[in-house]
Amino acid sequence: MSLVVVGSVAYDGIETPHGRVDRILGGAATYIALSASYFTPPKIVAVVGDDFSGEDHELLASRGIGLEGLEQKPGKTFYWSGVYSRDMNERTTLRTDLNVFAEFDPKIPPSYRGQPYLLLGNIQPALQRSVRAQMNGVRLVGGDTMNYWIKDYRDELLETIREWHFLLINDSEARELSGHYNLRKAADAILGMGPETLVIKRGEYGAMLFRRDSHFVAPGYLLDNVFDPTGAGDCFAGGFTGYLASQGMAPDEASIDRRELARAAVYGSVMGSFCCERFGVDRFRTLTRREIDRRFNEFREFTEF
Amino acid sequence: MSLVVVGSVAYDGIETPHGRVDRILGGAATYIALSASYFTPPKIVAVVGDDFSGEDHELLASRGIGLEGLEQKPGKTFYWSGVYSRDMNERTTLRTDLNVFAEFDPKIPPSYRGQPYLLLGNIQPALQRSVRAQMNGVRLVGGDTMNYWIKDYRDELLETIREWHFLLINDSEARELSGHYNLRKAADAILGMGPETLVIKRGEYGAMLFRRDSHFVAPGYLLDNVFDPTGAGDCFAGGFTGYLASQGMAPDEASIDRRELARAAVYGSVMGSFCCERFGVDRFRTLTRREIDRRFNEFREFTEF
Repeated sequence: MSLVVVGSVAYDGIETPHGRVDRILGGAATYIALSASYFTPPKIVAVVGDDFSGEDHELLASRGIGLEGLEQKPGKTFYWSGVYSRDMNERTTLRTDLNVFAEFDPKIPPSYRGQPYLLLGNIQPALQRSVRAQMNGVRLVGGDTMNYWIKDYRDELLETIREWHFLLINDSEARELSGHYNLRKAADAILGMGPETLVIKRGEYGAMLFRRDSHFVAPGYLLDNVFDPTGAGDCFAGGFTGYLASQGMAPDEASIDRRELARAAVYGSVMGSFCCERFGVDRFRTLTRREIDRRFNEFREFTEF
Repeated sequence: MSLVVVGSVAYDGIETPHGRVDRILGGAATYIALSASYFTPPKIVAVVGDDFSGEDHELLASRGIGLEGLEQKPGKTFYWSGVYSRDMNERTTLRTDLNVFAEFDPKIPPSYRGQPYLLLGNIQPALQRSVRAQMNGVRLVGGDTMNYWIKDYRDELLETIREWHFLLINDSEARELSGHYNLRKAADAILGMGPETLVIKRGEYGAMLFRRDSHFVAPGYLLDNVFDPTGAGDCFAGGFTGYLASQGMAPDEASIDRRELARAAVYGSVMGSFCCERFGVDRFRTLTRREIDRRFNEFREFTEF
C-alpha cells in the first residue's frame, strides 16, 4: 500500500555557514518522498521542467519512489535560493522562480487513485483539495501549509483542512492559523477546524502532537553539527506519515492509538535530524533503515526516566 | 539531611501581559528554597534589609525553610524590577537596586556547616567559593551563574566551578562559557571544566542534562497560561537538587545513576512550570506535593512512546 505525495520538486541554491551549493535537488515532495521511502513506497505527483536531470530522476527511482505522476513540461524547474543565519535559526530567501511550478495543476495518474495514504505538501489549498477529490478510498490524508495561505487564502484553507485527518505545521503557523499565542490554546482551536491530529513542528526543539484527549512531546535530536536544515520539516512529515502507512494505520481503525502516533512523531524527528547532516538531500544517498532504527532507540534512551 | 541554599532574597516589581505587581517577594534563594522544600528541608543563607516583612519571613518558615542564615541588616532589601515582552520570551530590566545585597558576604551558621547538599545561586564566583570553603563534609555541590560573571570574571568562575558536581545554566550562558554555538559541543567543553553533570535550561523547551557518557532531554510542560516566568529557572534548580537530596544522592555513590538524574531534571521542569502559573512565588502558597507528583506522572504520559 502506497503513500501518494503531492508538492514541489525543485532546484535549490543554499548557503549555510558550512558552505554554498547551487541547483541541487530539493522541494517539499522530494524531501517527503525520500524520507517516507524508508517506511513505505511513496508515489510522487509534481511537475519539473526540461532541465530536470536524469541523475536526480535516478536518485528518486533508486529509493523505490513512484514517478509516473512526475510531469515534465517545457521550461525550467522551480528554483529557490536562500541563505541561513550563523545560528541557522533564520533564513532569508534570495530568489524564488516558480517557472513550470506556477501552472502546477496536479493530475493523479489512475494507478495512484486507489492508494490509501495521501500527504499534501505545501501548495495552494484549492489544489490540495482537487487532489483529495481525485483519490478514491483514501484512508488517511494530511498535509502541510504555510503563513501565506493562512493569511491570504484563509477560507479556502479552512475548507481544505476540514477533511484532513492530520495537519503538520510549525509553531508560528499554528499561532497565525488559530489566533492564539499559547500553543495549547492554539492546538485546541485548530483541532476544532477538522483535523483529528495536529503536529506542531518546532525545529531543533522537535515537535508536539495533539489529539483532543492527549498530547505528546517529541524532542529534537541533538546533532554535533547542523549542516543544512533545508527540508527537515518535510522529512519529519515523510517519516511521520511513512511510519503510519507502514503500520497500516488509519483513523477509522481502533488500532491508531496514541502510542503509534507518538512513535510516528519520533520517526519524524529522527528523519528531520538525518536531513540536517548534509546539504540538501545528500544524506539520503547513503542512509540505511538500520541507522534510522538505531537513532530511534537513542531517542528512547535520552527520554526515558 | 538538609540542602543549604545561598543567593539573593529580594523584592521584585514585575510586569507581564497579565498585570503588574510591585515589591513582591523574589530572589534566587527564595525561589530555589521554596521549590526544594517539597523534597527536602532547605536552609537559606542570604541578606535582607530592615524593610523585610514578617509576612514574607513567615511564608518561608511555613515551608520548613531554615532561616538562621537569613541575615537582616540596616538598609533596604535588594530590589529588582522588569517588564516582559508580549510573548514573555524576553524581559527588560527596569531597575536594579542592590541595597544591602551589595555588601553580601555569606556567613554559614555553624549548624549549617555539616550539611551534605549545597546549592549556590547566582552570585559573585569568589563568594560562591568562600561558601563552599566554609562547609565541612559537603557531598554534592552545584550552582548557577550568569553571563556577567562568564564575561568579566571568567578565571574566578572557572576556579569556582572546577570543584562543583553540577552546573545549571541556560543555553546562551552555555554558549558563552564554552565558546561553542552547538550545544553538544558546548556541553563537552563545559564537562571538561570540572562539573560531572551539566544541566542546560531552555525555558519553555525544558532542559537537557549532560554527563560524559550520556544525555537526557526533559521537555517543558505545556501550560494553558504562562502568567509570570520570573524564578522558573531557580525553581528548576530547587526541584532538581531537592529531589537528588531527598534520594540521598551523591556523586561518589554508585547509586547516582542516569535514571535518577533524569527524574531530578523532570522534577525540575515540573517545579519551573508551577512557578509560571502565578505572579512571583504565589503558586507556592497553595501547591501540594500531590499536585507535583501528578504533574510528574503527566510528563511520563506525554513523553512515552
